[in-house]
Amino acid sequence: MLEATYWALCQHGYADLTLEDIADEADRSKASIHYYYDTKENLFIEFLKVLYERYTARLPSADGGTPREQLYALLETVLTDEEAAPGQEIRIALLEVKAQAPYSDAIQTQLSNFDEILFERLRDVIAAGVESDDFDTTVEPAPAADFLVTAITGAHTRRVAMEYSYEQLYEAITRYAERDLLAPEQSEVAH
Amino acid sequence: MLEATYWALCQHGYADLTLEDIADEADRSKASIHYYYDTKENLFIEFLKVLYERYTARLPSADGGTPREQLYALLETVLTDEEAAPGQEIRIALLEVKAQAPYSDAIQTQLSNFDEILFERLRDVIAAGVESDDFDTTVEPAPAADFLVTAITGAHTRRVAMEYSYEQLYEAITRYAERDLLAPEQSEVAH
Repeated sequence: MLEATYWALCQHGYADLTLEDIADEADRSKASIHYYYDTKENLFIEFLKVLYERYTARLPSADGGTPREQLYALLETVLTDEEAAPGQEIRIALLEVKAQAPYSDAIQTQLSNFDEILFERLRDVIAAGVESDDFDTTVEPAPAADFLVTAITGAHTRRVAMEYSYEQLYEAITRYAERDLLAPEQSEVAH
Repeated sequence: MLEATYWALCQHGYADLTLEDIADEADRSKASIHYYYDTKENLFIEFLKVLYERYTARLPSADGGTPREQLYALLETVLTDEEAAPGQEIRIALLEVKAQAPYSDAIQTQLSNFDEILFERLRDVIAAGVESDDFDTTVEPAPAADFLVTAITGAHTRRVAMEYSYEQLYEAITRYAERDLLAPEQSEVAH
């Protein structure tokens, strides 16, 4: 059913999506979908929960590697992991869903979980790097992680709306990480 | 007519907006709107052109003040200028429009103008600051400006989708500017 939602979403976008489209895609009756989910919003909340499970499973684990390697692994996963990450159609649909978030507390809560887990992982990696002197020790982990989440959000929006390449955005964000987070002697970029 | 589009957009959002809604708001016949604009997309492109004119008029001019003051004036305008900037409803609608951009080259072109002018202003201010030694002389103006546009885009998306306060986002972005762009002796933040 949630696979069907995925494909229906890719085809129709969120705004035009109806429970009927999903029923068609799932080869089920609209009545049975209504029975389980009642509204498009409820179905969607379940769908976002599944996406969130996949997202957290994809994020690299915190053990293994230096903080620097862990930071890069995280950025790579959320910015360039085209295979594991959803394709352009679903990205467009998810940007549409973001525009619906102000109208639905439940959708906003689901979406904020994605930001929250990414923020926590980044904060922990940065804190470990500051602790171990791999990173610039003047960096404050929580504000730095929050700023990175904002920049990554912007990268996703520009990717969809402006068809920016992820290579370009990944380079810009790692350049920031090099300059601002990593200790000068750790950096490969000449200052 | 474009005022009517603005209000109709605030009320209905982009996805559900019809030329009829705009006609109602403008107290005109749907036929006359069709005569001038033909499609919702065409009307919208005109609308984005008007928003763009207002946007460029609002951006502070490049003369007067130090590069540092000019940078802050720019960031303040695009992030916190609630009075001159559109309200929450229009922001939501514009995020919706961004999600439509992949389906319309003309809309994408209009939207990219907003990024482009902001990029140019930021790049010029940063270049002036690097030139005058007010900023860290290792900063490369174009990549730094592009990264700032990405972070500002993310701030706008999080503002809509997560109801983040602009104060929070403005603080995060100016903190980045302090650390990464401004020369240490210019910065008010202790490193």
